[in-house]
Amino acid sequence: MVAAAIALAGGVAYMGGTPARADGAIAPAFGIKPPSGYRDWRLISVAHEEGKLNDIRAILGNDVAIKAYRDGTFPFPDGAIIARLAWNYISSEENNKVFGGPQSFVAGTPTNVQFMLKDSRKYASTGGWGFVQFDDGKPVEAARLSGCFACHVPVKARDFVFTKYSP
Amino acid sequence: MVAAAIALAGGVAYMGGTPARADGAIAPAFGIKPPSGYRDWRLISVAHEEGKLNDIRAILGNDVAIKAYRDGTFPFPDGAIIARLAWNYISSEENNKVFGGPQSFVAGTPTNVQFMLKDSRKYASTGGWGFVQFDDGKPVEAARLSGCFACHVPVKARDFVFTKYSP
Repeated sequence: MVAAAIALAGGVAYMGGTPARADGAIAPAFGIKPPSGYRDWRLISVAHEEGKLNDIRAILGNDVAIKAYRDGTFPFPDGAIIARLAWNYISSEENNKVFGGPQSFVAGTPTNVQFMLKDSRKYASTGGWGFVQFDDGKPVEAARLSGCFACHVPVKARDFVFTKYSP
Repeated sequence: MVAAAIALAGGVAYMGGTPARADGAIAPAFGIKPPSGYRDWRLISVAHEEGKLNDIRAILGNDVAIKAYRDGTFPFPDGAIIARLAWNYISSEENNKVFGGPQSFVAGTPTNVQFMLKDSRKYASTGGWGFVQFDDGKPVEAARLSGCFACHVPVKARDFVFTKYSP
């Protein structure tokens, strides 16, 4: 099936042509773009991943998601979108000089941006969440996202969302 | 001198009774509070500091600051405020289980929040920036902030601001 464009809360006209899949991965289709204005969303929290990822990241939420976090509304209501922005994790020579030691790490170039979109009907088989990733603004193949939901199952008690809100 | 309350851009009625000092530190005084709504400000970037600080941090900006960053307007105009929120840097057992290794670090409890406020007249002797820090919502003694400006001098070319905007 090809769904019609979804009008999400907050006036974000999201993507047209997003087939729902049993694994929650949103198949890329012509015209899929990141939600408009996501870089202006409010902060949920931050994190650092070592290993292959080696990134530093910010997790932002649209108005629906932020309100749910602050009110403690779980599961998240339909229309909630959580964005995970990541950048290469780099040592800051400039900062280290000031601190007097190699202790400062900052965000370098962007790596990719991931979104979780809550639509309890459309993504019923994956906890109500759809998963999508953009590399350089382009959606990645759904096949690469097929494992997203399985990894989120351990945090089912928090509606499949790892990130906790940082006050 | 005791300055009158400053009405900053964005409708933020800031603090009453903030003596300007030659080192840019804003002396704590009765009624000093963090700028209203700063937790809703937009993201500039993220960072991690090792060493004694051992924190993970987000740098947010009010509307004036974000606009200046995006437009490349330097020096920052009066009314710009940059907020640095920091949390204890902790390993996430929950995330590590999913990743299969000890690679995930997240934000724990908040440590403190720092602000740089641009007022080119009031803080003329410190590059136009006033510095303030809040621990648990309470302003720290100005004496503890007396070194702020000196450390920022190496980045004078970027109007004394270390953090670069992360797209």
